[in-house]
Amino acid sequence: MNAPAEKETARVEAFSDGVFAIAITLLVLEMKVPHTAGAALWPQLLAQWPSYFAFITSFATIGIMWLNHHRMFGFIGRIDHPLLILNGVLLLGVTFVPYPTSVVASYLGHDGERPAACFLATTYILIAIAFNLLWRYASSESRKPRLLRVPPDDPHVAALRGSYRFGPLYYLATLALAFVSAPASVGLNLALAVYWALPARPAGGRSA
Amino acid sequence: MNAPAEKETARVEAFSDGVFAIAITLLVLEMKVPHTAGAALWPQLLAQWPSYFAFITSFATIGIMWLNHHRMFGFIGRIDHPLLILNGVLLLGVTFVPYPTSVVASYLGHDGERPAACFLATTYILIAIAFNLLWRYASSESRKPRLLRVPPDDPHVAALRGSYRFGPLYYLATLALAFVSAPASVGLNLALAVYWALPARPAGGRSA
Amino acid sequence: MNAPAEKETARVEAFSDGVFAIAITLLVLEMKVPHTAGAALWPQLLAQWPSYFAFITSFATIGIMWLNHHRMFGFIGRIDHPLLILNGVLLLGVTFVPYPTSVVASYLGHDGERPAACFLATTYILIAIAFNLLWRYASSESRKPRLLRVPPDDPHVAALRGSYRFGPLYYLATLALAFVSAPASVGLNLALAVYWALPARPAGGRSA
Amino acid sequence: MNAPAEKETARVEAFSDGVFAIAITLLVLEMKVPHTAGAALWPQLLAQWPSYFAFITSFATIGIMWLNHHRMFGFIGRIDHPLLILNGVLLLGVTFVPYPTSVVASYLGHDGERPAACFLATTYILIAIAFNLLWRYASSESRKPRLLRVPPDDPHVAALRGSYRFGPLYYLATLALAFVSAPASVGLNLALAVYWALPARPAGGRSA
Repeated sequence: MNAPAEKETARVEAFSDGVFAIAITLLVLEMKVPHTAGAALWPQLLAQWPSYFAFITSFATIGIMWLNHHRMFGFIGRIDHPLLILNGVLLLGVTFVPYPTSVVASYLGHDGERPAACFLATTYILIAIAFNLLWRYASSESRKPRLLRVPPDDPHVAALRGSYRFGPLYYLATLALAFVSAPASVGLNLALAVYWALPARPAGGRSA
Repeated sequence: MNAPAEKETARVEAFSDGVFAIAITLLVLEMKVPHTAGAALWPQLLAQWPSYFAFITSFATIGIMWLNHHRMFGFIGRIDHPLLILNGVLLLGVTFVPYPTSVVASYLGHDGERPAACFLATTYILIAIAFNLLWRYASSESRKPRLLRVPPDDPHVAALRGSYRFGPLYYLATLALAFVSAPASVGLNLALAVYWALPARPAGGRSA
Repeated sequence: MNAPAEKETARVEAFSDGVFAIAITLLVLEMKVPHTAGAALWPQLLAQWPSYFAFITSFATIGIMWLNHHRMFGFIGRIDHPLLILNGVLLLGVTFVPYPTSVVASYLGHDGERPAACFLATTYILIAIAFNLLWRYASSESRKPRLLRVPPDDPHVAALRGSYRFGPLYYLATLALAFVSAPASVGLNLALAVYWALPARPAGGRSA
Repeated sequence: MNAPAEKETARVEAFSDGVFAIAITLLVLEMKVPHTAGAALWPQLLAQWPSYFAFITSFATIGIMWLNHHRMFGFIGRIDHPLLILNGVLLLGVTFVPYPTSVVASYLGHDGERPAACFLATTYILIAIAFNLLWRYASSESRKPRLLRVPPDDPHVAALRGSYRFGPLYYLATLALAFVSAPASVGLNLALAVYWALPARPAGGRSA
């Protein structure tokens, strides 16, 4: 009964991958063509820096989330119903990301940029919490049959749990920063994604 | 000739999964950035509760529909042409969901919220009917060769038929409620999705 | 060298399936929420019949095209570069369908409905021609190595060629009809898709 | 440990294929239905030639990029973390393409068409550079374990490196041309894509 369980897991991961791929590609729809008398198009395209900034930040953040999701599912060999629901909650957060991204793109550099940055950071916090719930459930050893395909003492399991635990805290920092400076808050979100993308991290970063 | 039939079934399910994943991710495009003088952005974001409400309701409903579709196809080992067409009719309903969702998001809390909630409930009723037609056709024993990969007396087959039979009735209840209160009707749709997502249901809910 | 060729074919079909699934799901974005004082929402939703009509017509047409594409690729065991390019031309047409659909939805019942219906029919004619080119190339026996996985005298090969040959003519009829009546032209497109979806057709219709 | 590496590579390619398929299908959303008194719809549809031109150009360009990506991954047997990040940077560029395409569609034939064409060409240059970085990294022989599945002296490896090297230069030419004539610049982008699609190219063009 192991082969069907693996196949089922692959199917759930494929569905999730589809949702990640669509959400990351829909981000571009938030970019609006500037509509004004034409000669001054370059300055207008440059004046849209908040849109590019928000686009790249959310692209990088969803990208890192995909990596995390993918790495997590690399350890999962069996899906049960609660795991499916927790995964659905996580995907709910991921599909929502284009909206706060669009709010930030519209308001950065204008009045209202701080609430906008708070909104984005809050979305990321909720997704980071969903990651924690998903991995805690999947890696719990009290459940039979076990959901992980690796032994309970695999060091990656504890390492992932450790690193996910800090995710909400990092985004809490970007939330706090949003009350001081919206561009700094969005920039910290981007910096976190770039930092997590660096290959030299101790836990899990190798071989995706 | 069993392996090609299974491969064909997998391909139809993959196509359907793609449509579900896209429809569930397009829901976010219905959210509109509020455009007003900036300082009051938070109240405006909160004033958009109908959009969040509609988004979460349709996300949860399409999610449950995906689960049902997936579970159903877990029992189907062979696809014939009528099944393909019935599956197409079901997907027609699923891809349509973002539109009534958008109507509800625009009208909830305003004049016209009741027709909007009726429109959403009617869409769900039609999809629930399509589920019934699909499963009745797939599980019919008068057809040769059989489409199911499980024996005719598998208890899940009757259980699924039983549970699908009530789907249109539940949504008929949300339709009736829409004539009294639009928020209550949308809320009942959401409550149904959450209830169906609970793991402790007798028929089929385990292991997705 | 057969296994890699089959894998390559599967990958191209998966990419094409993705494009079909996205194009068919994007159709709903053409539906616009009516924005007027709310109590009269039902009449307004009903007044949008051209949008529903165009949506269902293009959904059914893209659905039938997917079926045809899928059936065609069921006979193809090897992809070469020209086939890939012809497939790309076909997909170019398929991804374009949401635009003329949107034009028809906007103009049906108003001045300009006939050009709109012509525009849709012309798009379908071009896609039907692309289908012919693709299948003629794939089924040509002068090419070595052969691209089909079935023997040259397989009756399905000739049957498909015969049925594709008439595709452009049928849509030419819908184009001609558009000069007389736009709703009749769109209705004929829908009727053709429903007719082709009927299971009892002589060539190929069984088992998708 | 080869089978998991191949499976991982297939999964990353599947995710990338999804992003390519979505980006290429979203291009149509840039087309806007003309809204004017209806009788003159044909002239208006024809007056939208910049939109069709931009649509076809970006469709062909993303299509060729998909082919290149696909061919490249045909030689890659193992993914490491930096390769994943470089692939993400490439996909960032690909998902962005609908935006400059939309800018070109809006401005071609009007004041501001040259900055618009520059914007598109610059986007293509950056994607071409990302292709170079990705392939140089993947084909580097100093890295252990090797990422390629073919031997170091496979002639395709050097051929791909050679052909990618010129990609940024070709798009630099379209950028330069944009300062003289925007339609000529966009046309050269399209001509390059068509030329690269021709089957008779020496390196790699066969069998996709």
